[in-house]
Amino acid sequence: MRNLLLISSSRVIGFKYLEVAQDEIKNVLSFVSTVLFIPYALKDYDAYLNTVTQPFTDFGYDIEGIHEHEDPVEAVNKAEAIFIGGGNTFLLLKTLYEKNLLGAIRKRVLENGIPYIGSSAGTNVATCSINTTNDMPIVYPPSFKSLNLVPFNINPHYIESPYKAVHKGETRDQRIAEFLQMEEAGPVLGLREGCMLRVTGDRAVLKGINDAKLFQPGKEPKIIKVNEDLSFLLNN
Amino acid sequence: MRNLLLISSSRVIGFKYLEVAQDEIKNVLSFVSTVLFIPYALKDYDAYLNTVTQPFTDFGYDIEGIHEHEDPVEAVNKAEAIFIGGGNTFLLLKTLYEKNLLGAIRKRVLENGIPYIGSSAGTNVATCSINTTNDMPIVYPPSFKSLNLVPFNINPHYIESPYKAVHKGETRDQRIAEFLQMEEAGPVLGLREGCMLRVTGDRAVLKGINDAKLFQPGKEPKIIKVNEDLSFLLNN
Ligand SMILES: [Ca+2]
Ligand SMILES: [Ca+2]
Repeated sequence: MRNLLLISSSRVIGFKYLEVAQDEIKNVLSFVSTVLFIPYALKDYDAYLNTVTQPFTDFGYDIEGIHEHEDPVEAVNKAEAIFIGGGNTFLLLKTLYEKNLLGAIRKRVLENGIPYIGSSAGTNVATCSINTTNDMPIVYPPSFKSLNLVPFNINPHYIESPYKAVHKGETRDQRIAEFLQMEEAGPVLGLREGCMLRVTGDRAVLKGINDAKLFQPGKEPKIIKVNEDLSFLLNN
Repeated sequence: MRNLLLISSSRVIGFKYLEVAQDEIKNVLSFVSTVLFIPYALKDYDAYLNTVTQPFTDFGYDIEGIHEHEDPVEAVNKAEAIFIGGGNTFLLLKTLYEKNLLGAIRKRVLENGIPYIGSSAGTNVATCSINTTNDMPIVYPPSFKSLNLVPFNINPHYIESPYKAVHKGETRDQRIAEFLQMEEAGPVLGLREGCMLRVTGDRAVLKGINDAKLFQPGKEPKIIKVNEDLSFLLNN
């Protein structure tokens, strides 16, 4: 059974790293003792593992870095739970392809039902494609298709651009509207910092401390409140 | 002889469309009567051609859309000058590849010396790669490599992110720093809205009404003033 937590961002103003998600993390990780951490979205894997060790220890879990294992695919095959953190989505997805991990993670999560936690870039790669990342395309991955643990797109760190008065670059809403014009585009869930999507089987619900905004081709954007049911997005 | 004008953005607060660049446009287009406009960064080519016709008419030039020609490669081969406008960089580059235009434009600009004007996405594709675009990756191009009319990267719409206090997403400087960590990364010229790079042969100089910021691997970012010489970037 699908058991996912897709967080907008690990850092939220006024909270410690991952603190805003701690109740949901404990919920998704029931019966888990050790979490396999995938640090590929940043360059320094050891430093990144260091950053996430404290919060997971505080929450009561052991954490290990996939880069400490000789065979990353085997590490995934044996993992009790997976956490992929933020950084650069292009770098993350390219590395997942290079290390042949997409199929392994999909199988472990969708067939074996182990918990998957993603944050920011780790949330982007959990969706059908990285077409709605905010990141700069610093490297070229072999495809934008990603894990497809959910059959729609997410825009993490969603924000209405507050600096239109001084700058003419596209607002976030304009960028998402451009995507919605593309032939293959489906729904895009804009997750504000502080909110997250909890998926259990065929049920999806918004959690956290901030609302979200749902964009769909040909429709007006719609505000989604915390605890609102989003299961219809899974039937896409 | 290389004759380029690479503009940060067509829209600048307080100016009409392309108005901030009008002196430089007239300079780069000396001896030209008709400009070939490439509207591929947006979806509606006719509407986009409409938008740019007024300013070019005001400046004293005829403008035609490449989409009005039956054979786009032939249109490029016969063009007196080329203008590529902004929109989505990924959509633009993918379409240039699909229509087999990269080699044709390169040849016309670098060998035959016809003027090239780019703005925003049209500036990104003029550089060595689109790795430093701000746009959302709404479609997947066959490569991030682009026209390479200049051998370095540009970040158009460059801005120091002013909303750090309410949002934890990466700042522009952080995004560029992530790129600089990549193996193949070279210099990135951050062009603020209102500034532009003028290239004539082996000489490059900053023009416009705003300064720029130069990022280089392993070095501190450096402010570049209007009229400052940047020719060393062409020897990269
Ligand atoms: Ca990021
Ligand atoms: Ca753009």
